[in-house]
Amino acid sequence: MAIPVETFFLRPGDQGTLQARIQQMVAEGVLSGRFRRGEKMPSTRRLAAHLGVSRITVSLAYTELQASDYLSSRDRSGYYISEGAPEPPDFPETPRAERVDWQRAMGRRFAAGAVPERPADWASYRYPFIYGQADPKLFDHANWRLCAVQALGARDFGALTQDYYDRDDPQLVEFLIRQTLPRRGIQARPEEVLITLGAQNALWLASQILLSPGRRAAVEDPCYPALRVLLGQTGCALSAVAVDAQGLPPEAVPDGTDVIFTTPSHQCPSGATLPLARRRALLERARALEAVIVEDDYEFEMAYLQPPTPALKSLDGDGRVVYVGSFSKSLFPGLRLGYLVGAAPFIREARALRASVLRHPPGHIQRTAAHFLSLGHYDSLVRRIGRALGERRQVMEAAIRDTGLEVAGVAAHGGSSFWMRAPEGIDTAELSSDLQRDGVLIEPGAPFFLRPDAPRNFYRLGYSSIPSERIAEGVGRIAQALARPRSQS
Amino acid sequence: MAIPVETFFLRPGDQGTLQARIQQMVAEGVLSGRFRRGEKMPSTRRLAAHLGVSRITVSLAYTELQASDYLSSRDRSGYYISEGAPEPPDFPETPRAERVDWQRAMGRRFAAGAVPERPADWASYRYPFIYGQADPKLFDHANWRLCAVQALGARDFGALTQDYYDRDDPQLVEFLIRQTLPRRGIQARPEEVLITLGAQNALWLASQILLSPGRRAAVEDPCYPALRVLLGQTGCALSAVAVDAQGLPPEAVPDGTDVIFTTPSHQCPSGATLPLARRRALLERARALEAVIVEDDYEFEMAYLQPPTPALKSLDGDGRVVYVGSFSKSLFPGLRLGYLVGAAPFIREARALRASVLRHPPGHIQRTAAHFLSLGHYDSLVRRIGRALGERRQVMEAAIRDTGLEVAGVAAHGGSSFWMRAPEGIDTAELSSDLQRDGVLIEPGAPFFLRPDAPRNFYRLGYSSIPSERIAEGVGRIAQALARPRSQS
Repeated sequence: MAIPVETFFLRPGDQGTLQARIQQMVAEGVLSGRFRRGEKMPSTRRLAAHLGVSRITVSLAYTELQASDYLSSRDRSGYYISEGAPEPPDFPETPRAERVDWQRAMGRRFAAGAVPERPADWASYRYPFIYGQADPKLFDHANWRLCAVQALGARDFGALTQDYYDRDDPQLVEFLIRQTLPRRGIQARPEEVLITLGAQNALWLASQILLSPGRRAAVEDPCYPALRVLLGQTGCALSAVAVDAQGLPPEAVPDGTDVIFTTPSHQCPSGATLPLARRRALLERARALEAVIVEDDYEFEMAYLQPPTPALKSLDGDGRVVYVGSFSKSLFPGLRLGYLVGAAPFIREARALRASVLRHPPGHIQRTAAHFLSLGHYDSLVRRIGRALGERRQVMEAAIRDTGLEVAGVAAHGGSSFWMRAPEGIDTAELSSDLQRDGVLIEPGAPFFLRPDAPRNFYRLGYSSIPSERIAEGVGRIAQALARPRSQS
Repeated sequence: MAIPVETFFLRPGDQGTLQARIQQMVAEGVLSGRFRRGEKMPSTRRLAAHLGVSRITVSLAYTELQASDYLSSRDRSGYYISEGAPEPPDFPETPRAERVDWQRAMGRRFAAGAVPERPADWASYRYPFIYGQADPKLFDHANWRLCAVQALGARDFGALTQDYYDRDDPQLVEFLIRQTLPRRGIQARPEEVLITLGAQNALWLASQILLSPGRRAAVEDPCYPALRVLLGQTGCALSAVAVDAQGLPPEAVPDGTDVIFTTPSHQCPSGATLPLARRRALLERARALEAVIVEDDYEFEMAYLQPPTPALKSLDGDGRVVYVGSFSKSLFPGLRLGYLVGAAPFIREARALRASVLRHPPGHIQRTAAHFLSLGHYDSLVRRIGRALGERRQVMEAAIRDTGLEVAGVAAHGGSSFWMRAPEGIDTAELSSDLQRDGVLIEPGAPFFLRPDAPRNFYRLGYSSIPSERIAEGVGRIAQALARPRSQS
């Protein structure tokens, strides 16, 4: 590979002769790892013209660099970084006098609240009971690729390259309105729909618009840990409402609540389904409070055991429910496409905020998804993944039964995880560390809870990324670890 | 196309017999536009099983629907939405009792500050002197497509489907560090780089982290209008610093400034380049203020007339400059990829905030861009677009000279726009409306200014989307419109 001539600069104010500065520039490039052995240097003529110096100056510099084995010349084909040039570190170690007090310089901080994550190398573990990762073996590579290529074709190119500013791909929006939302019992007009960068982005937009310091949000306890983080960023007050086996008890939503966050079809993480009577009562309670409900309908496609209940939004005569849907989780997390459905005034604000934050989700991704959906590939993918998850769930159930582990909750319609309870006195964060050394990844439950006296003995077992044949052994290792005597802390 | 059986729901609590409710459900689907003429209905057997009713009930409903010409049957192949079925409106008009007071329900508002945009149908205008849109004829479809397909290949699939959580594509980051940033004179380590969803997203992240109520930002006046909107969202105080022909005068940055936003290589919108002495003075001024500088290096690739000056960041020994770069504008706006380069503590916060807002830019886009860059296609694209823009700029210059229009500023190294001054007394917002009716799109200048007595006679002419052969006529129409007598307001 040739090193582009544009990479070379005579830094204004540097000391020394031009020749010395050119030599130093090349040596720095090598030592910083930017120039690699065997890469071709610009010709003396080109570099001289680019830097605005005489060619003889560059030639003299190159000759010196040859003598010190930074460069080697090959007859008639020019100069190359020598095979004997010094080996650089992996990435440049820029010497830098950090003269900025970043603690003072930053007006707001975000890193502190970050949720503990799975190890980056989770795929190298043998028993990854992690949640929300796609299984590459189940994905429909061939058809996604065809749709991507179609979306890159001349006919779709306008959609792909145009800066929509704040609009969405009309094909994707139409498909959602005509095909996806009706399956959840939802009717919507285009001005009631906004495409987002995944469900996380949808929840973030909704919380920024609906909340502010002085307002109060009610969340299920336990709940999706990242939700707590993003609600914290709004400065609002938080009420934790403990869920039971039927999900959120509407009467427990406290007075003064402005926004209720709920997962009615499939409580996160317990899997509970909110019964019809509670749904009606929740809408009634929200009406009495003049509150808005944000419904996170995550994983609704993962209903391989029985049809999912219609969305809470389908019962919403008031336009009081903001609905969050997604194509990501379990199916295809790297895709990062989700959507918000809500009253037009709300969607208008969400669209304006999205425009400030990121303009719009990339056009090519939107159009590829529109093709993949409308050609029916997504439905096939959902069915295929549903079959695989259904099989794994049976294996999980058998292994859990055989080892005597305790299930705290699981979704009746399907899903991709079990919510588990370890014996009292077990701290599943410690259990998780122990198991990690044994090749088993589980998700400790404490970060899901908001209440100060949160139990430490819950954990989640996801089965979207572990092959069936490893489940029994993995669950067995968890049971063994739980059976081991451990120091009381 | 067949209508999926999952689309059908018996809404709990609806009145009437089962048969009537099924008929109503189908009629509603047709009238709301969800079911279209010729689409196939589920068989009576499937729908009955799905709804949990007897097959005879469904058959009776279908027969009634046939009688009212909602459905038609074809021998042995089942039931279809009849060709005589009522024509629906474009999208469902859901009757909805809006019982929510959205003015009250929303804690924060964003839509009010939105920047006036170009017409959505700008491409249908004959003389679109608009800014920041790609010209599809110049884009390298074939190679982008090859890179996209490669990024969808089995080898890259992990990168594509994994939820990176808060990380970036290592290949893209490495390319930036080894190839792109050095051309701007910048050395960086991976922990000093964050991939963003375009430059807009980078500026938004930086402003959210560096500013808060009680802090003060200094911005160039005039400046990029969307910057003002996103700074407004932080609640900070704003100082407008008037630029001159050499860009931002460092001594004019007021005391008490915490963050300085600047476009040193190519002032937006005037095109001025900040001279070396001012760059040094600006860094010195920032050091004295203990302020951070955010450098927006937009359009640095568009240097087809002379090499661009190195970035301000390249002179930054303190780690005081946060650098914003992008692959989007003019080249490929729908791509939506940009990056932030800054001190590690700052990037750590930006990464955490990005994770809350949107997790990460889609993996497939990142990997496709990494291939497109590392195979040299991006460089070729930049050169091809540079040649086209260079030619258009000559035509622009000639047309402007011939018509006697006044240029207020233009980038020495290239770029894609002219900053223009109309005679005193002209309001270019009115001029723009007049011209729009004449097929000519220009961008009024007032939204670029912050000062209360902002001049109303500036405007911007972009030439990235107008073919050369239409430039002379378009510029001529602007000159004619300016020459027309107009009512004094």
